[in-house]
Amino acid sequence: MNDNWWQAACRIPDAEAERCALVRQGQLTKPAGSLGRLESVAVQLAGLLGEERPLLERLWIGLFAGDHGVVEEGVSLFPQAVTGEMLRNFVRGGAAISVLARAQGATLEVLDLGCAVPREALAGVRELHLGPGTANFTRAPAMSQAQCAAALTAGRESAQRALDAGSQLFIAGEMGIGNTTSASALACALLSETPQRLTGRGTGLDDAGVRHKAEVIARALALHGPDIDSPQEALRRLGGFEIAAMTGAYLGCAQLGIPVLVDGFICTVAALCAVRMNPGCRDWLLFAHRSVEPGHRLLLAELDAEPLLDLGLRLGEGSGAALAVPLLQQACLLHAQMATFAEAAVSAPDA
Amino acid sequence: MNDNWWQAACRIPDAEAERCALVRQGQLTKPAGSLGRLESVAVQLAGLLGEERPLLERLWIGLFAGDHGVVEEGVSLFPQAVTGEMLRNFVRGGAAISVLARAQGATLEVLDLGCAVPREALAGVRELHLGPGTANFTRAPAMSQAQCAAALTAGRESAQRALDAGSQLFIAGEMGIGNTTSASALACALLSETPQRLTGRGTGLDDAGVRHKAEVIARALALHGPDIDSPQEALRRLGGFEIAAMTGAYLGCAQLGIPVLVDGFICTVAALCAVRMNPGCRDWLLFAHRSVEPGHRLLLAELDAEPLLDLGLRLGEGSGAALAVPLLQQACLLHAQMATFAEAAVSAPDA
Repeated sequence: MNDNWWQAACRIPDAEAERCALVRQGQLTKPAGSLGRLESVAVQLAGLLGEERPLLERLWIGLFAGDHGVVEEGVSLFPQAVTGEMLRNFVRGGAAISVLARAQGATLEVLDLGCAVPREALAGVRELHLGPGTANFTRAPAMSQAQCAAALTAGRESAQRALDAGSQLFIAGEMGIGNTTSASALACALLSETPQRLTGRGTGLDDAGVRHKAEVIARALALHGPDIDSPQEALRRLGGFEIAAMTGAYLGCAQLGIPVLVDGFICTVAALCAVRMNPGCRDWLLFAHRSVEPGHRLLLAELDAEPLLDLGLRLGEGSGAALAVPLLQQACLLHAQMATFAEAAVSAPDA
Repeated sequence: MNDNWWQAACRIPDAEAERCALVRQGQLTKPAGSLGRLESVAVQLAGLLGEERPLLERLWIGLFAGDHGVVEEGVSLFPQAVTGEMLRNFVRGGAAISVLARAQGATLEVLDLGCAVPREALAGVRELHLGPGTANFTRAPAMSQAQCAAALTAGRESAQRALDAGSQLFIAGEMGIGNTTSASALACALLSETPQRLTGRGTGLDDAGVRHKAEVIARALALHGPDIDSPQEALRRLGGFEIAAMTGAYLGCAQLGIPVLVDGFICTVAALCAVRMNPGCRDWLLFAHRSVEPGHRLLLAELDAEPLLDLGLRLGEGSGAALAVPLLQQACLLHAQMATFAEAAVSAPDA
């Protein structure tokens, strides 16, 4: 891969498969349009997967973890050791995403891009060793050029492994104490918004905690703003290892032709970054849910995205996307298996 | 069963199981509250199913069909023969609810309470023969006392069969050309609302069709209003066989202790009728989705109900409820299988 691999063309969805699927939807034994969003989702997946009646059977969840130097500014309720502790929980099966991946028969690939607290080697965790977390971005760029490039590539390589496994849907999840602070800062830079509008409670800050977090982000924006001349430079200065890896994964999926189901706030920031780096990426993204993080609505609006669920989720790990998978699967099943009016000899509407 | 069996006490949810489940939710390895609605759903199901960590594995779908005399007023796009044609489609596996029930391993019980168009006997359909559809309620009560009582009892008996099968969740679905007209009329009577606010497009009426449908409902309300002195009299005069059966099923489930997942607009009218007939029924009802029928919001508000999905569905058959089942199952799985902070040795939030 060359240095700017993400600029290579994204795959074009299969317009003919999509057209056939749309025709079929109109023939199924139900009032036209009565399955709402599930109809458009089935037609979209037909185009992305290149078949009139796709089924979603092979799921890939790439779980990207990394630590954040900005945590030393006191922006999270949880100690930084939790990032590594949760890596253990992921591979031992006790985390939310572990439970959901197991139930769905999904492949769960866990990547540690770089944690702050030393830890024993864990079977089932890919170790990237990009550094002991990012730098505190209120003082310096979060990542060096090399670190950011390596994180993007790590995501691209996860997408390649998903393709090699025949995956029909890619979910990226994230874990990293402090990463809503990084995501909010990056979102401010990408949207030219203020920290006041894009800063939320994260794992449970009170009002004073949210004000402090916004103030920390404001300092970072003042420091880096003048030097941000591209989405990848915003990512390098304000993002995190796992956010950059998810950005790379989304870009890789779009180039390789794997549909993506985007999780919550942090993932949507990575998705926006990916779309800014290569707009053709947008076609491959579906959106799972609307998080309670206040910035999520603005990001979804910018991406013209209408998520499937709105359940007050804010857990991360890709859990909201995993929860929405059965809806996509059921949309495909209905599309594939319902009888047409002709097959069932059911009368069509009166003219 | 005596004549007013529905007045017998509903079961009381298990407060101790619910309390234990709430404690457990607070110990799982996630920020407090971060699974949003799925946390309260898991705790509620613990109380209803009487165990700290329930799993939803045995599902019952009772599909109630019947015809409506009011169809002769020209309130539906589809010919009345479709009710019977769809009964065939249900048992042959080609309808939306058939596809979803099969995928979920749910029991699908199909009941024909009374269709207008004669039809061959169908293996897999319970025939109730209450009449060739209801009477046209713009001229007479939709049902006789005996018909309404028989329909309520048919629903109660379906709930009993669900209990006998060990079902942990009951979904009622409906099929009946013209039944949004009946449901809207009944909702107007129960809510003291105008047809203008509670009449929608049904299977796809245009604006003129909706105006005509509202005018038909207004005539029925003018005819029956003075004689409606109870929810069951509203049901008898304005409801349908399948709506009365679903009302009986919901009441039966609450008396027998089976949690109910209510589908869309028509089912929610039956649910409101059931709650008015016996308020203890409300504890046993969960709500699957917000339909595009305009009256649904008012009904949900009256029932203080917050549905799980909002996907623009308006198919009926119980399909929206079936689509939401995996969310309930995943809520239970997360609740049962996630590790606690102590089990996973993950640090709790800083004090």
